[in-house]
Amino acid sequence: MASRALTLREIVARLGGEAVGEVSAPLTGVATLDSAGPSEIAFLANPKYRGRLASTRAGAVILGPGDRDAAAMPRIVSSNPYAYYARTVALFHPESEIRPGMHPTAQADASARVDAGAEIGPYVVIGPGAEVGRGARVGAHCAIGANVRIGADCRLHAGVTIYDGCAVGERCILHSGAVVGADGFGMARDHGAWVKIPQVGGVRIGNDVEVGANTTIDRGALDDTVIEDGVKLDNQIQVAHNCVIGAHTVIAGCTGISGSVRIGRDCMIGGGVGFVGHIEICDGVTISGFTFVTKSITKPGTYTSGMPVMPHSEWLRNAAHLRRLGARAAKTGEDSE
Amino acid sequence: MASRALTLREIVARLGGEAVGEVSAPLTGVATLDSAGPSEIAFLANPKYRGRLASTRAGAVILGPGDRDAAAMPRIVSSNPYAYYARTVALFHPESEIRPGMHPTAQADASARVDAGAEIGPYVVIGPGAEVGRGARVGAHCAIGANVRIGADCRLHAGVTIYDGCAVGERCILHSGAVVGADGFGMARDHGAWVKIPQVGGVRIGNDVEVGANTTIDRGALDDTVIEDGVKLDNQIQVAHNCVIGAHTVIAGCTGISGSVRIGRDCMIGGGVGFVGHIEICDGVTISGFTFVTKSITKPGTYTSGMPVMPHSEWLRNAAHLRRLGARAAKTGEDSE
Amino acid sequence: MASRALTLREIVARLGGEAVGEVSAPLTGVATLDSAGPSEIAFLANPKYRGRLASTRAGAVILGPGDRDAAAMPRIVSSNPYAYYARTVALFHPESEIRPGMHPTAQADASARVDAGAEIGPYVVIGPGAEVGRGARVGAHCAIGANVRIGADCRLHAGVTIYDGCAVGERCILHSGAVVGADGFGMARDHGAWVKIPQVGGVRIGNDVEVGANTTIDRGALDDTVIEDGVKLDNQIQVAHNCVIGAHTVIAGCTGISGSVRIGRDCMIGGGVGFVGHIEICDGVTISGFTFVTKSITKPGTYTSGMPVMPHSEWLRNAAHLRRLGARAAKTGEDSE
Repeated sequence: MASRALTLREIVARLGGEAVGEVSAPLTGVATLDSAGPSEIAFLANPKYRGRLASTRAGAVILGPGDRDAAAMPRIVSSNPYAYYARTVALFHPESEIRPGMHPTAQADASARVDAGAEIGPYVVIGPGAEVGRGARVGAHCAIGANVRIGADCRLHAGVTIYDGCAVGERCILHSGAVVGADGFGMARDHGAWVKIPQVGGVRIGNDVEVGANTTIDRGALDDTVIEDGVKLDNQIQVAHNCVIGAHTVIAGCTGISGSVRIGRDCMIGGGVGFVGHIEICDGVTISGFTFVTKSITKPGTYTSGMPVMPHSEWLRNAAHLRRLGARAAKTGEDSE
Repeated sequence: MASRALTLREIVARLGGEAVGEVSAPLTGVATLDSAGPSEIAFLANPKYRGRLASTRAGAVILGPGDRDAAAMPRIVSSNPYAYYARTVALFHPESEIRPGMHPTAQADASARVDAGAEIGPYVVIGPGAEVGRGARVGAHCAIGANVRIGADCRLHAGVTIYDGCAVGERCILHSGAVVGADGFGMARDHGAWVKIPQVGGVRIGNDVEVGANTTIDRGALDDTVIEDGVKLDNQIQVAHNCVIGAHTVIAGCTGISGSVRIGRDCMIGGGVGFVGHIEICDGVTISGFTFVTKSITKPGTYTSGMPVMPHSEWLRNAAHLRRLGARAAKTGEDSE
Repeated sequence: MASRALTLREIVARLGGEAVGEVSAPLTGVATLDSAGPSEIAFLANPKYRGRLASTRAGAVILGPGDRDAAAMPRIVSSNPYAYYARTVALFHPESEIRPGMHPTAQADASARVDAGAEIGPYVVIGPGAEVGRGARVGAHCAIGANVRIGADCRLHAGVTIYDGCAVGERCILHSGAVVGADGFGMARDHGAWVKIPQVGGVRIGNDVEVGANTTIDRGALDDTVIEDGVKLDNQIQVAHNCVIGAHTVIAGCTGISGSVRIGRDCMIGGGVGFVGHIEICDGVTISGFTFVTKSITKPGTYTSGMPVMPHSEWLRNAAHLRRLGARAAKTGEDSE
């Protein structure tokens, strides 16, 4: 990725914080304490790595107020060194310049309103009545359905598909292969076969949402599926119809959320988690990776169910005994416990 | 989604059932008992929600014979109110009209046979010898390989990929990002590396099958992978090579099915389920979400293995004890039980 | 798939091994012992199926030295019959001929270097500074970012996306919907919202790697994500930022690997497995399907955690008792065990 040189003085001028020591040496980038060289700036966000301050070859370091004097090299003191690190990387690696305009091969319906300040890539298809906001970037091969709204400053990477009638807020990032608004999985049994229930709700995505590669968010059956502001979804997540995901909740990869689940704000959901349908998770809940969420959760805290790995021989013994637990308890009367 | 107004009389004329009460008031759409307004029709399919008949503001309701007199408002009595609801939604929201013909940017090989009544979207690529039936709709950016057959009245949403030689029946729906016919995962170990086993079987999909967004169905190694009539697959399902999925079986999202698994007819498989390879599931089996299907199932019924969520502190205690179950049993002689 | 006729003599001339019996009869393809007809060649790789030699109608068979005299029909004796089978299928079904050149609708930046011996399909987009090697085939709708390198003889099926700056070695196969180089899932909490950590590392894929359909491999945060030579990834796998996967490791479908996991060489990872982040798996480890890998593994062997399926009624009893294990142990003092 493109990079440029910056001094501590320039960084602090842009991002705040306190610069300590030599502030005018040019730095070429950000690296970890372990790998940084003399022209790079590292960071200490996790106290576990404090010992590495002694051995790092970094030319500078970002750290918290408590570690102000733990290093002798030029440094930036910030109340939130991890967030400071994030912003410093962005300074060194600014996004490529937007090139407003439609690629000559892009196909937009005559009734679509594409802002002149948006960048529309090759082979993009935009349906009737769709809107694309100022500063939005739509990568190659994206398919934007009829009456879709894409807010200002969004970035859709190559190959994103948005079905008819869905809405995406401002400053969202959608990665390749994401599919927004496919039909929810709804059908009614009738005479031995399944009758499709047309899915006529939409998907509403708030501002500052990120959607990972190959993640799918289904449209609602009657009402909308809703992703609130600031939600971050990793890759290969499945969000079923009529889910509501509260603001600033983050969800790691491969998690599957069944229909009509409501997840609160500020939750942190691990990877590979599964949710049964029609449950409600309150604000501020953490779910460990690989957990099967079988019921509503009404108190903030951390919840878990994944079984930890063990050598296969040990597992064989345990699985056999686990299967006998119920039977054994029945015999000894523990069921009444 | 586009909608239009209908009266109870018109609905019953189209779908059957018995209309009770005022039949000529225009209704504008379908909604749940909770959210419906006076111009909307709601439905009661689950007895659990019967109490809501008293409070709903709906202008009409669909219900079963047993609830015929449980509501005073205009109503439709149907022996299967849930399926009736599905069909009513379809009446209010007819599919957009098909626009037969090839988009000027679509690329079809000269030897492909695309029915004149099919709609082929922008940037679609159709390989040599492929066939697309009457009334089929192929969305933007679909890639249809050589000698693929797409039956009449299928709908491929944008960005579906079908590899060479695969066949899709009639009236199937394939959602965006679905990949049909990629190579099965087969290789042989030889001198410390892996030799690819060419996958020369195909995929045969029956009639009335729905395939969710980003679902993958691999081609067979030597014989075909088979999805029988009426199967419904949700998003992000993986069907490995040489699986056979029986007619009218439904499978929820994120489920992974290993190679050569045979699943019977009329099964209901939850989300996030995993199947080991080379097993057989008989007709009429229900598998709970997040279950690991480790062996063949020969009797209809419901099967489960997912561990239920619990507070992390409780889980820590249980996991530690579970790991000791086998060891403890060995000490006390329970292994001989 | 295209096929042609071959005799045992021709096969052995190409692949080695010893032909026994009639070597000049034309064979039309490869099939299993069960399904092969008199013009087909079958194979016996798993001793479990030895009994089928008596009943097969196959015209010839591939088998190991120990089974040399277990069949009377024409046969090929190989020290590795399964690998021999793989190569025999490839002989019968050669890849279609490459058609070098850019499809007229492909868009390559003027600064991209596409070898004249590469085949670039319709609607492919290739960014500035990208390189595509000799003999590489890039299918329809692939999006190749800026400064990407695709080695010689790679095959990208339709709809593969590779983000800027990623590198793919030689002879790799990437299936449809694979996304290489999307942003890793990194963010820092700040004042109640999340600050994106720009992901400025890349992805480096070695030689002879296969990447399944809809699999995602994220770019590194600062350093690269690395897939070493000969790794085989099935469909719908998620590889998070900064993972390193050792040479010749194979991973089955739907497995999710969290950030900064290092997996050794020659590992075999089942389907639906999850890895927590920042752990290390040594060389030669086998992980059973549906296992949750919660910690580093330092000894070769087989590891497991998935709970086996059981009838739901039995599961209900066991789950209840499992939940009580910790509480009961605390009462009886087993915690001190």
